[in-house]
Amino acid sequence: MKQATETLPTSDAQPVATLAASKLALRRVAIDTYRENVAYLHRDCEIYRAEGFQALSKVEVRANGQHILATLNVVDDVAIVGCHELGLSEDAFLQLAVDEGHVVSVSQAEPPASIGALNRKIAGERLSREDFRSIVHDIAELHYSKIELTAFVVATNRDELDREEVYFLTEAMVASGRTLDWHEPLVVDKHCIGGIPGNRTSMLVVPIVAAHGLLCPKTSSRAITSPAGTADTMEVLANVQLPFEQLADIVREHRACLAWGGTANLSPADDVLISVERPLAIDSPGQMVASILSKKIAAGSTHLVLDIPIGPTAKVRSMPEAQRLRRLFEYVARRIHLSLDVVITDGRQPVGKGIGPMLEARDVMRVLENDPDAPNDLRQKSLRLAGRLIECHPDVRGGDGFAIARDILDSGRALAKMNDIIAAQGAKVFDYNKPPLGRLTFEVCATQAGVVTAIDNLQVARIARLAGAPKVAGAGLDLFHKLGDVVALGDVLYRVHASFQSDLGFARQACDKATGYTLGLAAEVPHVFVEF
Amino acid sequence: MKQATETLPTSDAQPVATLAASKLALRRVAIDTYRENVAYLHRDCEIYRAEGFQALSKVEVRANGQHILATLNVVDDVAIVGCHELGLSEDAFLQLAVDEGHVVSVSQAEPPASIGALNRKIAGERLSREDFRSIVHDIAELHYSKIELTAFVVATNRDELDREEVYFLTEAMVASGRTLDWHEPLVVDKHCIGGIPGNRTSMLVVPIVAAHGLLCPKTSSRAITSPAGTADTMEVLANVQLPFEQLADIVREHRACLAWGGTANLSPADDVLISVERPLAIDSPGQMVASILSKKIAAGSTHLVLDIPIGPTAKVRSMPEAQRLRRLFEYVARRIHLSLDVVITDGRQPVGKGIGPMLEARDVMRVLENDPDAPNDLRQKSLRLAGRLIECHPDVRGGDGFAIARDILDSGRALAKMNDIIAAQGAKVFDYNKPPLGRLTFEVCATQAGVVTAIDNLQVARIARLAGAPKVAGAGLDLFHKLGDVVALGDVLYRVHASFQSDLGFARQACDKATGYTLGLAAEVPHVFVEF
Repeated sequence: MKQATETLPTSDAQPVATLAASKLALRRVAIDTYRENVAYLHRDCEIYRAEGFQALSKVEVRANGQHILATLNVVDDVAIVGCHELGLSEDAFLQLAVDEGHVVSVSQAEPPASIGALNRKIAGERLSREDFRSIVHDIAELHYSKIELTAFVVATNRDELDREEVYFLTEAMVASGRTLDWHEPLVVDKHCIGGIPGNRTSMLVVPIVAAHGLLCPKTSSRAITSPAGTADTMEVLANVQLPFEQLADIVREHRACLAWGGTANLSPADDVLISVERPLAIDSPGQMVASILSKKIAAGSTHLVLDIPIGPTAKVRSMPEAQRLRRLFEYVARRIHLSLDVVITDGRQPVGKGIGPMLEARDVMRVLENDPDAPNDLRQKSLRLAGRLIECHPDVRGGDGFAIARDILDSGRALAKMNDIIAAQGAKVFDYNKPPLGRLTFEVCATQAGVVTAIDNLQVARIARLAGAPKVAGAGLDLFHKLGDVVALGDVLYRVHASFQSDLGFARQACDKATGYTLGLAAEVPHVFVEF
Repeated sequence: MKQATETLPTSDAQPVATLAASKLALRRVAIDTYRENVAYLHRDCEIYRAEGFQALSKVEVRANGQHILATLNVVDDVAIVGCHELGLSEDAFLQLAVDEGHVVSVSQAEPPASIGALNRKIAGERLSREDFRSIVHDIAELHYSKIELTAFVVATNRDELDREEVYFLTEAMVASGRTLDWHEPLVVDKHCIGGIPGNRTSMLVVPIVAAHGLLCPKTSSRAITSPAGTADTMEVLANVQLPFEQLADIVREHRACLAWGGTANLSPADDVLISVERPLAIDSPGQMVASILSKKIAAGSTHLVLDIPIGPTAKVRSMPEAQRLRRLFEYVARRIHLSLDVVITDGRQPVGKGIGPMLEARDVMRVLENDPDAPNDLRQKSLRLAGRLIECHPDVRGGDGFAIARDILDSGRALAKMNDIIAAQGAKVFDYNKPPLGRLTFEVCATQAGVVTAIDNLQVARIARLAGAPKVAGAGLDLFHKLGDVVALGDVLYRVHASFQSDLGFARQACDKATGYTLGLAAEVPHVFVEF
């Protein structure tokens, strides 16, 4: 069988005119559509009338040998886009990388090359290594619409990916971006799966292990759904947005850094997927493993200590679930040649006292300074994680890590290393004894006497975000009581800090609905048995 | 255990100011975001700074006791939206139903009430009747973002819904809108699951069965992914957008109508779901059944003949698949008390000769006029479907329907009934012997001699859409040869009609890639065994 493909133009048809008709002048439309390319065409534009151009259909925009795909919005206002213009949302405009007014051509987009593989996954099939490469490539190149991204995230949710598919996905995500090589046999990192407010152990673990001589080029994300990420908190103390070459110099000199990872183009598909995982609050095991491990491999890590907190309001809520997740991490880590040590920790409540960048930076500095007000839970957890990493060193005996880490911290060597890193990255003025917290405050008090039997990680994080964290560094929550504390009627449970009246109002509304604290009997405090 | 909920304001906090700060002036932003509400806030707007307002997060907009939910886009151009304004996309603006400049308040949206049920479905759980009610209510009220809609569609895809869940979904979709009651015991309808170009049997079945006295108030959709829907084709002959009361009068007088169903608010959740099913090309059995049957129940039908075409490029590609789908339709129909007769038909190729509204209207009128050029496949199929419906009448013996239908058609009574309906709805000038087709044309010719062994329904539909159908009524394809025809080298397979050079160019590009026709040996024509 053979396709009949000859077409005979009749007198009316003029293919040259057809092509000319699809040219438009480029216009930047100053709308931030958050990682979804949107193209704007006026309803009266002749090109728009050509089917299947309809609102939400996909178009391909070409100029100067570049091309991007975009979702179409139809506009009825020439102030936004004229009849002979094509508008692009901010990200899309930057990607196309030509000037306003440049002639662009627009056509109905062919579906992304990997759409067949996506449809097979939606239909429940197992995908090959090649399928994942193709899908992740299209995702990283922003060829997928939000609808297609969501379809991929939901279709690979739960147990829809077997462990080898998770490995394929991880590997494809590494391949979609840059990979760093530090030219050393031992490059260590630590990571937490997240969900516990105040859990700023990286800012203690990194200086401790670097003071022991381990190479720890730590790049972190900013907060996505939490009130502070490590990058947001470190930014209170030092500059975190550095050109990659400068960062590499700092790492070579000081064995470590604590910087934002956003500019390094490591596993870029991950950043795109997060744009739909976040609003859906989907965080399935397979996607979590691929996201975390792909970033680590791309960053050049050889050894990773991974923190999985469990608790009633943590991401992982039971030990069997934690063990299943641990095994999946270990399987994929082995396939991608990453040495992995999983630590299951207490995630029943926030770590430390402060929630929000400045409050958390205060806690970190108190621990480093061996201040008597330092939160002991943050100190102990950081020492244990640092100890595990130190044991990656071939000269350290199993079980000795914790004592070495404690020595480094107690002796002030961790503080000295942190100060070196801060100075190298560009120090900011910050007095941890008088942090310039948000000046608008209110206090949440106990309405009865009792014992603190639960602190809802999700609710206190939400309140801190509404108060302005992490955008407003001085906003957040200062916790006065933790699990098991006995409180009297009227005792302050926590203080909320904000810098804007509107933020304060939103936080107060949330507190009025639920403070996040539960008071009851001592016997009601949930127990958790963790691995340390 | 009791929640500690008291909050004590300290001197800095001023809740009244907080509320005042969230007021903005409403502005209509003339962007059509196709059934997704989008709110536009300027990046320098103080309200925007309040967390968790981020691009793509959901906000609630209130004014005059009304409220809507919208996805947030952040704007950097005061020409689109100013710092003290809130912009709404066209649909969203209409929904809020207040004037431009009106004071609105905006706050971070609580998730839709049904989001817990959605998350349980994503997690693979079975949902209750109440869950489906809640989800479908939120969908119909446009409380879901595109991301949430996609998540629902993918999470209920394939066999994720058991048959009772499909029934719950159908029932919830009926409840989300209006239900018509014709106050007669027998209200008949026919429906095809779609996918076959040119398949305009409704425009023949309706006048035939109405001429026999059956009540057939047919409302149809416009084309969604196809080059012509029944409403688009009927619109060539008559007005199809009529106020509901006028339509009801026509039905009472003539026993039938052929109108667009869009204004009746029947199963509105279905229209919203289509906005994501369409770009994903997802058409899972459960969603298809709920979509079709909910519309029929809402339209007041008591008896339905359902056409399931099978063929290599039809929606259903094998007899076992067709039988599974038939059983699911039958189960749900029984639960919602709809008398259903499923007919499995030949879907190997387009029906009739024309593809596109005007070309299909020509075919329909040729059949009604008993014109010697009438496409026999369209005539035969319509008679068989009409016969099945006529057999719903208690006075007709099983097996007699076809002969009765043929009598009605051959005698001219079907044409007379059609002319009554056309006149009642408002006739348009249309001479089926000289239809004003698109004047730009080209022909696709055989590049070898042989037998037509395949016509790709999807590709010919795509070419017809690119040529301008259904927006341009005179655009489309005129097929000169069908399956099994013997053609010589250079014979015209079909002619493409368009009205715009750009459309013609797009269609030509598609033809150059694949004409949709395959030529080969007579033995290669696929057979199909259907139920008639």
